[in-house]
Amino acid sequence: MLIVLSGPSGVGKGTVRKALFSQPGNDFQYSISMTTRKPRPGEKNGVDYFFVSKEEFEKNIQSGQMLEYAKYVDNYYGTPLKYIDETLASGKDVFLEIEVNGAMQVRSKRPDGVFIFLTPPDLMELKHRLIHRGTDSMEVINKRIHKAVGEIEMMQNYDYAVVNDTVDNAVEKIKGIIKTERLRVQRVMPDYLEMLGDSKK
Amino acid sequence: MLIVLSGPSGVGKGTVRKALFSQPGNDFQYSISMTTRKPRPGEKNGVDYFFVSKEEFEKNIQSGQMLEYAKYVDNYYGTPLKYIDETLASGKDVFLEIEVNGAMQVRSKRPDGVFIFLTPPDLMELKHRLIHRGTDSMEVINKRIHKAVGEIEMMQNYDYAVVNDTVDNAVEKIKGIIKTERLRVQRVMPDYLEMLGDSKK
Repeated sequence: MLIVLSGPSGVGKGTVRKALFSQPGNDFQYSISMTTRKPRPGEKNGVDYFFVSKEEFEKNIQSGQMLEYAKYVDNYYGTPLKYIDETLASGKDVFLEIEVNGAMQVRSKRPDGVFIFLTPPDLMELKHRLIHRGTDSMEVINKRIHKAVGEIEMMQNYDYAVVNDTVDNAVEKIKGIIKTERLRVQRVMPDYLEMLGDSKK
Repeated sequence: MLIVLSGPSGVGKGTVRKALFSQPGNDFQYSISMTTRKPRPGEKNGVDYFFVSKEEFEKNIQSGQMLEYAKYVDNYYGTPLKYIDETLASGKDVFLEIEVNGAMQVRSKRPDGVFIFLTPPDLMELKHRLIHRGTDSMEVINKRIHKAVGEIEMMQNYDYAVVNDTVDNAVEKIKGIIKTERLRVQRVMPDYLEMLGDSKK
């Protein structure tokens, strides 16, 4: 099972992901990204990132070895397929924390993944603010509405919406989603069918 | 949200449902069934069942007021639509515990419901038994395989499969499913769209 955590920039995806993986007993694997940027002091290849050259990254793109990628300020960042497929083949679920553009690339290639959208708490607070008009200027309100429309449009492409009101709440909800998704008939059915297949041997 | 718990007869649906509702803090409503059988000592109308006459039940069927129903030994049993629609309209989720035939009637009318199939623990134990052949006779094994095929065929029409290994485990999983389903984008989206609609007033 492929689990994708995404959301608008600044929502706190990285903080929530780190809190999730700092907890003991997680039985899923964080997907290590590949990048062409230089390692920062303390960063290790194969732990923080797979650090590669620009040429190697572009070779990976051309041969279809990237599940998703993007270029920021002259550097590539992306998710190599090989690592994910090897982890999934070993029976472990894979967890990705990526930007919204990357998440949509993944959705198109792996529609059976679990896509979680982390929403900023002020998206729902907007309602409260709209009800109590007068405390904000029209300009502030309109900016918030414009931002909210964009966020809600993004959210439509996901399976779940988790409000990042507190990191602990968001982590608990994400853990609940993963546990529940493992009970989906479409995911357990292959095991049962395999068992029946075995019974005919 | 309509939550339907079903499963093969004898799997322990009633026990699991009672354990679930005996816990404090449940924010969903058990759907009371309608029946034409006589109340047993201690049973109360509107609590254990809605007790009605055969004529009234048949009038409900004919006017399309039953979400699902079945006849056992000359008595009707079923789920009246009115009670469910009123509960859903009040903003509460509704929980149904019904037979597999009834669950399929509900699925056809309310495809957006959450359908949970309670599986007997011996369905997965079958694998273990098949691996350790020799302890059971071929007849016993074949009977179990036949039963398993039927159960797996039923399961295909559900969203989730919960193994009833212990009542506590099954209850915890069902509670997790309900919590997680509330995070589904398709369920929270109307709230966000309504909020945006309000913002234009």
